[in-house]
Amino acid sequence: MRTDLNVFADFRPKIPHTFRSTPFVLLGNIDPTLQMEVLDQITRPKLVLADTMNLWIDIRRPELIELCRRIDVLVLNDEEARQLTDCKNLVLAARELHALGPKTVIIKKGEHGALLLQGNDVFSLPALPLSDVVDPTGAGDTFAGALMGFIARSGDTSSANLRRAVVYGSVLASFCVQGVSTNRIAAATPEDVLARYNEFQRLTSF
Amino acid sequence: MRTDLNVFADFRPKIPHTFRSTPFVLLGNIDPTLQMEVLDQITRPKLVLADTMNLWIDIRRPELIELCRRIDVLVLNDEEARQLTDCKNLVLAARELHALGPKTVIIKKGEHGALLLQGNDVFSLPALPLSDVVDPTGAGDTFAGALMGFIARSGDTSSANLRRAVVYGSVLASFCVQGVSTNRIAAATPEDVLARYNEFQRLTSF
Repeated sequence: MRTDLNVFADFRPKIPHTFRSTPFVLLGNIDPTLQMEVLDQITRPKLVLADTMNLWIDIRRPELIELCRRIDVLVLNDEEARQLTDCKNLVLAARELHALGPKTVIIKKGEHGALLLQGNDVFSLPALPLSDVVDPTGAGDTFAGALMGFIARSGDTSSANLRRAVVYGSVLASFCVQGVSTNRIAAATPEDVLARYNEFQRLTSF
Repeated sequence: MRTDLNVFADFRPKIPHTFRSTPFVLLGNIDPTLQMEVLDQITRPKLVLADTMNLWIDIRRPELIELCRRIDVLVLNDEEARQLTDCKNLVLAARELHALGPKTVIIKKGEHGALLLQGNDVFSLPALPLSDVVDPTGAGDTFAGALMGFIARSGDTSSANLRRAVVYGSVLASFCVQGVSTNRIAAATPEDVLARYNEFQRLTSF
């Protein structure tokens, strides 16, 4: 119903020198002006992903559009994709988003999964059907973080690897919603993650 | 907003003798009392699928539950699954539906795809993202008809083939929504159908 910025209201991120040459940059969901300030401090990144939300579309639209020209991957949810582009149809919305700059657009659909659009190459992954959803808070951040973590660890920004990254993002998001805060994620072992990745394979194969 | 039964109000289906030994029965979405009358006229079917809707859950719940004991596959949409079982969570709803009788439950989610549940074996297929959705009328009937047509033609009721049947159902439903009435489906060639089946493969593989 309302976003309280709290500590973010006066936040001016200073990136430590040792972090400035990182090749993989995830611009978390803050004011696009600050996201650009972060980006200004990074030296020649290989892949930049930005997350955003309805608040910035409402009150920082020009800045968000400026940011879009400087990023490779835009992550947002279905309603935000519609709001930013004025397109009800998600395929047309993604086309508009591509035109703003990002070669890759990822549209999160919550319990309905996620869409990865790289021009005409479209990947659609359903969410894992869960009987025990406890709290969806943080699922979007978890998704983006795990997705970018997988890309950074593998160093592979190919279209096929981005598909796998979306699956890993969804795996971690599925753990996120099964607990409060980071409790369930923190309890997940690498084996749990791999098992759930394989569960996504069984869920979607035909 | 309202269902007018029209010619269905006084319809009492009489199955022609030559049809009574059909191994594959699709009970279209009519009064469950009539669906049972149809079933009474069939000799030892191999697979029986029934489609239903909110109206019958509202006014023919006991008859619908009686029907469920006599069918192999129940097809309904997500809202109807929730309404029939009083479970908001679709995994729990499917568990309740299994307990009513059908070994296989297919939950249609419109633009979000479909779920095929065979006990603990779950298949989730997203819908094909389309930029030109014209009219969704008939998409559910098309889905069920194509699904059953594929099973009947192949004669294979294995779990793996049911997954493929859901894909073929979704392929035909995707043509359905791209036109008014049966226009777009009627124009689709077998090659178009196969091409779109392969499109679903590309859409979902990782």
